[in-house]
Amino acid sequence: MAKRIGTQTVRFERDICITASAAVGSKKEAEGPMAGCFDLLCEDSNFGETTWEKAESRMQKDAVNRALEKAAKSPADIHYIFAGDLLNQCIGSTYGLRDLSIPFLGAYGACSTMAEALGLAANFLESGAAEACAAVTSSHFCSAERQFRFPLEYGGQRPPTSQWTATAAGACILEAGGQGPYVKEFTAGKMTDYGITDANNMGAAMAPAAAATLQAYFQDTGTTPGDFDTVVTGDLGAVGSELLYELLERQGIDLRKKHTDCGLLIYDRDKQDVHAGGSGCGCCASMLSGYFVKELQEGKLGNILFCATGALMSPTSIQQGESIPGIAHAVHLSGKREG
Amino acid sequence: MAKRIGTQTVRFERDICITASAAVGSKKEAEGPMAGCFDLLCEDSNFGETTWEKAESRMQKDAVNRALEKAAKSPADIHYIFAGDLLNQCIGSTYGLRDLSIPFLGAYGACSTMAEALGLAANFLESGAAEACAAVTSSHFCSAERQFRFPLEYGGQRPPTSQWTATAAGACILEAGGQGPYVKEFTAGKMTDYGITDANNMGAAMAPAAAATLQAYFQDTGTTPGDFDTVVTGDLGAVGSELLYELLERQGIDLRKKHTDCGLLIYDRDKQDVHAGGSGCGCCASMLSGYFVKELQEGKLGNILFCATGALMSPTSIQQGESIPGIAHAVHLSGKREG
Repeated sequence: MAKRIGTQTVRFERDICITASAAVGSKKEAEGPMAGCFDLLCEDSNFGETTWEKAESRMQKDAVNRALEKAAKSPADIHYIFAGDLLNQCIGSTYGLRDLSIPFLGAYGACSTMAEALGLAANFLESGAAEACAAVTSSHFCSAERQFRFPLEYGGQRPPTSQWTATAAGACILEAGGQGPYVKEFTAGKMTDYGITDANNMGAAMAPAAAATLQAYFQDTGTTPGDFDTVVTGDLGAVGSELLYELLERQGIDLRKKHTDCGLLIYDRDKQDVHAGGSGCGCCASMLSGYFVKELQEGKLGNILFCATGALMSPTSIQQGESIPGIAHAVHLSGKREG
Repeated sequence: MAKRIGTQTVRFERDICITASAAVGSKKEAEGPMAGCFDLLCEDSNFGETTWEKAESRMQKDAVNRALEKAAKSPADIHYIFAGDLLNQCIGSTYGLRDLSIPFLGAYGACSTMAEALGLAANFLESGAAEACAAVTSSHFCSAERQFRFPLEYGGQRPPTSQWTATAAGACILEAGGQGPYVKEFTAGKMTDYGITDANNMGAAMAPAAAATLQAYFQDTGTTPGDFDTVVTGDLGAVGSELLYELLERQGIDLRKKHTDCGLLIYDRDKQDVHAGGSGCGCCASMLSGYFVKELQEGKLGNILFCATGALMSPTSIQQGESIPGIAHAVHLSGKREG
């Protein structure tokens, strides 16, 4: 049985492993520094489909199928699939996974969805409800822009704090038993709202949630950033990462030397015109599934803390003058069974 | 540790109890036959707020706070809250629960969300990650109509197959240990799509999913409808319920005498102009939290199978010509520890 540690963290007793993972991206991701990490890169951002929403669904399906192949599993071997995305009513996931015939439990944590899905899957494995689960999420620049901001044809100006929604998906297969990487601990975050109302500054809206969850994790487990090869945040970008450092410094935690943000990793900010960095559920999902899991599998990384962040607003709530609640969930992944 | 039974069902080993629950409704619910089951009925469908979306958030908050009061708990006693709703990006839940400072895990299963949230909470209790959880969801006629169909001012005609989105919320507190009602088993559903494209006929879109999940549950557990006081579906309404009977009859299962649908329970179809019945996440959540849990607590019901259904489409997917995938999750609730 899992053990509650401190106020917000749970440590798993079973050997919960990410036994396979896969990442899918498109043209911009192929032009970025992490191109080599993707299992599938499709130059056509429509992925052969007739709409961007269908393309996003296709990415989830492709990511899951690639991960299943690598795990040498069929959909019938997977007891639950946990999935969600940014589209209204999570249609990226529902239409993408409809044909797989796997018991489906939809998750919504905006760009924190990958960490939430890993936490849900880990608990279903720990409880004994499952021996194998899948976790998947996605985002698509074109479907996100027109839904959250403006039609692409409008050509709206993007302020310097804005981020570029990744056209990407990431999928992990989690099993009880295996050779790792191991899901050791999970810290579910509380919503944190510092009153940010600028929907073009998601980094600022999410940084306080990341700070709160990381602080809770370090306190619960008695660890510091120095205990990890790297602490990976989801998509804080340049603005949010700097704010995260400042917020944690006030708590006596120095994260600067041990921090990686998937939004800063996936694109080259100097050359790719992404302003403050990448974002979207698919950003950290693809970096986790395509890069970090593989580095852990190969022993190039020993121990990471993956903390995905989400902004829990909608265009409607912003239009109604609401501020943006942030959320962050942390997952401790280790290449080794112990430690 | 939980036990997997058959292909899709899990039986919990810990005593997972719904120790308190509360239901909130508005004017139409107050005029219906189940008015007496609500803990709070607000004649003003704005609930004192300035927008319908904020009213929906307020309902979730009120439902959780009432349930917490009954359980004699504070938010700090709750280890996780599982919540979701029909609004884009689930803002009914995020803004409603933002101030509670409880670790938040968003769920999306459309109108099946209450059953999904119960299943998630039960697994977090079973895994040992939690000793107390909350599950909550909501819907609001006005916020749903303008988001999914037409602005209310347009006065669109509603076809006979259409249903009336309940303005309601339901919340349950689940704990490991207690006097019941007990969450005995959970069957997570697979998406089922029979090609229905009429967004005004949700009952038809969801009935095949309900049939599939119920059939899986009965087969996995070796039970029949006769083993339950009643089998409760979420919001199939008159059209979907009839289709469910027909689909199950083909599998040799007679549900007619043992079936209740929350969409048929919450309103008086003869007097309240709701066409095929009630619907929305809040429909079955309020009937479960306000009626069924209390009947089980008082021993008036011994044993129910609660099967909430959802239609996993969005206005965008319908506009793009897609059909509607349905989903249904089943939760076996018993007043007694054994059986």
